[in-house]
Amino acid sequence: MADIIVSKFGGSSVANAGQIQKVRRIVEEDSRRRIVVVSAPGRSKSSEQKITDHLFNIATDGMHFRDQRLSIPVADSKLAVIERFTEILQQLDISGEGIIEALKQDLDCKLRGDRRVAFLASRGEHYNARIIAEYFQASGMEAEVGLPEDFGLLVSEQFLNASLLQEAYGNMQQLGGEKITVVPGFYGVTKSGEVAVFSRGGSDLTGGEIARGVHAASYENWTDVSGVFEADPRLVPEARAIPRLTFKEIRLLSSKGFNVFHLNAMLPCKERKIPIHIRNTNAPEEGGTVILFERVPEEGVVGVARLDSVAYIYLEKDMLGEEIGFTADLLGILREFGIQTYHFPTDKDDIAVLVNQDDLTGAINDLRRRIEQQLKPDFMDVVYNLSILTAVGLGLQGNSYPIVDALSALGKAHIPIEMIDQSPSQICFHIGVQQTVADDALKILYRALIG
Amino acid sequence: MADIIVSKFGGSSVANAGQIQKVRRIVEEDSRRRIVVVSAPGRSKSSEQKITDHLFNIATDGMHFRDQRLSIPVADSKLAVIERFTEILQQLDISGEGIIEALKQDLDCKLRGDRRVAFLASRGEHYNARIIAEYFQASGMEAEVGLPEDFGLLVSEQFLNASLLQEAYGNMQQLGGEKITVVPGFYGVTKSGEVAVFSRGGSDLTGGEIARGVHAASYENWTDVSGVFEADPRLVPEARAIPRLTFKEIRLLSSKGFNVFHLNAMLPCKERKIPIHIRNTNAPEEGGTVILFERVPEEGVVGVARLDSVAYIYLEKDMLGEEIGFTADLLGILREFGIQTYHFPTDKDDIAVLVNQDDLTGAINDLRRRIEQQLKPDFMDVVYNLSILTAVGLGLQGNSYPIVDALSALGKAHIPIEMIDQSPSQICFHIGVQQTVADDALKILYRALIG
Repeated sequence: MADIIVSKFGGSSVANAGQIQKVRRIVEEDSRRRIVVVSAPGRSKSSEQKITDHLFNIATDGMHFRDQRLSIPVADSKLAVIERFTEILQQLDISGEGIIEALKQDLDCKLRGDRRVAFLASRGEHYNARIIAEYFQASGMEAEVGLPEDFGLLVSEQFLNASLLQEAYGNMQQLGGEKITVVPGFYGVTKSGEVAVFSRGGSDLTGGEIARGVHAASYENWTDVSGVFEADPRLVPEARAIPRLTFKEIRLLSSKGFNVFHLNAMLPCKERKIPIHIRNTNAPEEGGTVILFERVPEEGVVGVARLDSVAYIYLEKDMLGEEIGFTADLLGILREFGIQTYHFPTDKDDIAVLVNQDDLTGAINDLRRRIEQQLKPDFMDVVYNLSILTAVGLGLQGNSYPIVDALSALGKAHIPIEMIDQSPSQICFHIGVQQTVADDALKILYRALIG
Repeated sequence: MADIIVSKFGGSSVANAGQIQKVRRIVEEDSRRRIVVVSAPGRSKSSEQKITDHLFNIATDGMHFRDQRLSIPVADSKLAVIERFTEILQQLDISGEGIIEALKQDLDCKLRGDRRVAFLASRGEHYNARIIAEYFQASGMEAEVGLPEDFGLLVSEQFLNASLLQEAYGNMQQLGGEKITVVPGFYGVTKSGEVAVFSRGGSDLTGGEIARGVHAASYENWTDVSGVFEADPRLVPEARAIPRLTFKEIRLLSSKGFNVFHLNAMLPCKERKIPIHIRNTNAPEEGGTVILFERVPEEGVVGVARLDSVAYIYLEKDMLGEEIGFTADLLGILREFGIQTYHFPTDKDDIAVLVNQDDLTGAINDLRRRIEQQLKPDFMDVVYNLSILTAVGLGLQGNSYPIVDALSALGKAHIPIEMIDQSPSQICFHIGVQQTVADDALKILYRALIG
């Protein structure tokens, strides 16, 4: 385990000069922070578009914003990107020699198709890393930029959904010397040297893969929130950041509505048991959340997640339970329709499958017809607008008091419960309620289980 | 709705002369009991074999008992059948003219294959019905035998797993006149007049189908227990018969371990909303259990069932939850192996499928190999010897107090809970525990929810 921390800073952490100065102070504070992975600049005002969206707009000839019912010409997007980087350079008070010229040239690139989209989309990270490295140097740090094309962050040729090649790990050994290396996230290069990007949110993945490649002591993920909260702080203002979580817990929470960084990005760290530390660039004094391979739980429940827009498809059929494979057939049909399923309680004569309600849009009539023709249920119903509240915690193992507390509290508040499940893995349980009462239910569960 | 009750008497209710005299008194007591369906004589001593088993033994040339590691020659089985019916005739003090001769001739029948097995297996019901009809007449009742071959209880040509043909319903209109008709259960005749039997337990089906065919006011199912109990009375001595249950409730209870009569046999009555009344021939003064199409619940839980020998197959795989269709694939494999599944909780990175443990015998190694090759889980485990306790009651709808009470009571008794589920249909919930503590858990749940 090298004594290196890989620190990844998200879009809001590097959105403007003021934020980049915070990044500098954070990096300076711990000499182990020798690999810094950066995103493209995020929004610096909520009114403006993200740099990366402008870049997609340029790449797609104006389609990108049109899809969002905005009309921004390509020329305006180019201008916005150039002005934004120019402004950052000026505010950081560095020359950035040649940077704006190179950027302009890149924006006029002649690539076509996916290669074009990948190349242009990656420019936000690319130029931001170059600017930040130069700023670090100008302010007296031993720093350099480490571009994927230079050190060989090799990826597959799926230009818009690339995956890392094994050789890349070896090439990463060049990183993490005495100097601080600033690496742009989100993209790599193919063996023939062309730019390809990870799926969006992929700067997190760059950070995770590099942490794995250099056997980092930890992977810091700096954002604009102070970690993973016990519950959505917009609904539960007293919710705090969870200090320590296992990979298993965070995955359960995020699958049920917690909005944390890209799950895929955790896998490289999980495999090598490298802890991930989620921290707030705007409040580095706060402890944040550490995601670990294992921990000893001191409490029952660490967090309550909420997943909205769940529907259930309910089928009744006499002797259904005797038909081996009925459920498999049903799930096969749902797969064919591309519908994500969450949970499948089944009984003798009925089965209820919870699904992502949005997946039913436009498909529900065909789906009903298909199920009726193939499975011939006696009765079929689709119920919409459920919310699933999920309590997660290693401390739930072999401990049924929390679910009793949860159900008692909801009962006392007269909140009807649509569904209850605690699975054999037993580090979480799920309670389904009508979406209209989900705000209240979340608050009640938080207070009963954590607060 | 005709003013007829179809009364079916099971094997123990017609096992000997004393029992048949009880049947006579029951039939006499209510003039609506004009169709009486009878089983073959059951064991009259626990040491002896059932008539129908002897008949299977004759049909299979001694194989039937050999499969049960008994050695009873065909000649002995023939003798046992003849002696038993002779004894019943003598004790009922009727001549039964020609009956024993006809029986002897039937036992020597020259049919082969499934036709032979079906014909011989049906002889217990056939001759019992003839004897009981004659006894009814001899004791002054207006009665006659109604044989499937005479009134046309037509069935398909699957000789050992026959199903009723639509025409049979029309033919049943001949039954239920002024006279009491005694009908042998379990068999019908094909269009070409050959005997074919329902799957075993099929006398219940004969009764249910006839109740449907004659639009009976109710279908009485007379047994040696006083109805459906709230919980297994061997474990919970204070458990009482449940007075009223819906079809839905009984199906849920019986799917989770309640041993009531053949579920298939309920379908004809359920379709026509004919109530089924389960009663005790040995205690006709007791109310028994009425199974109805609907009812207004006065309580939360009506019964707690217990299903043993449940195993769960647990799989972990990173990003499993993102793979649409992973569960469908898993269930497809289980179907291919003929393994019955009960319940499928699933989470982001894991899935646990509850299965009938007996189905895994001999198949588990191949199944593991197959799952590992096809689904490539990161981790796979099979946990054996779970019991699923299921609380059922219409009154559970929108009412979560019972599950809170159940979990609190188990918690207080320090019984670890492996699994909890209350499905959206919500008239039952399931609690999984280790089989070793299931006796205690059942008692605790009974006392917390019902007793």
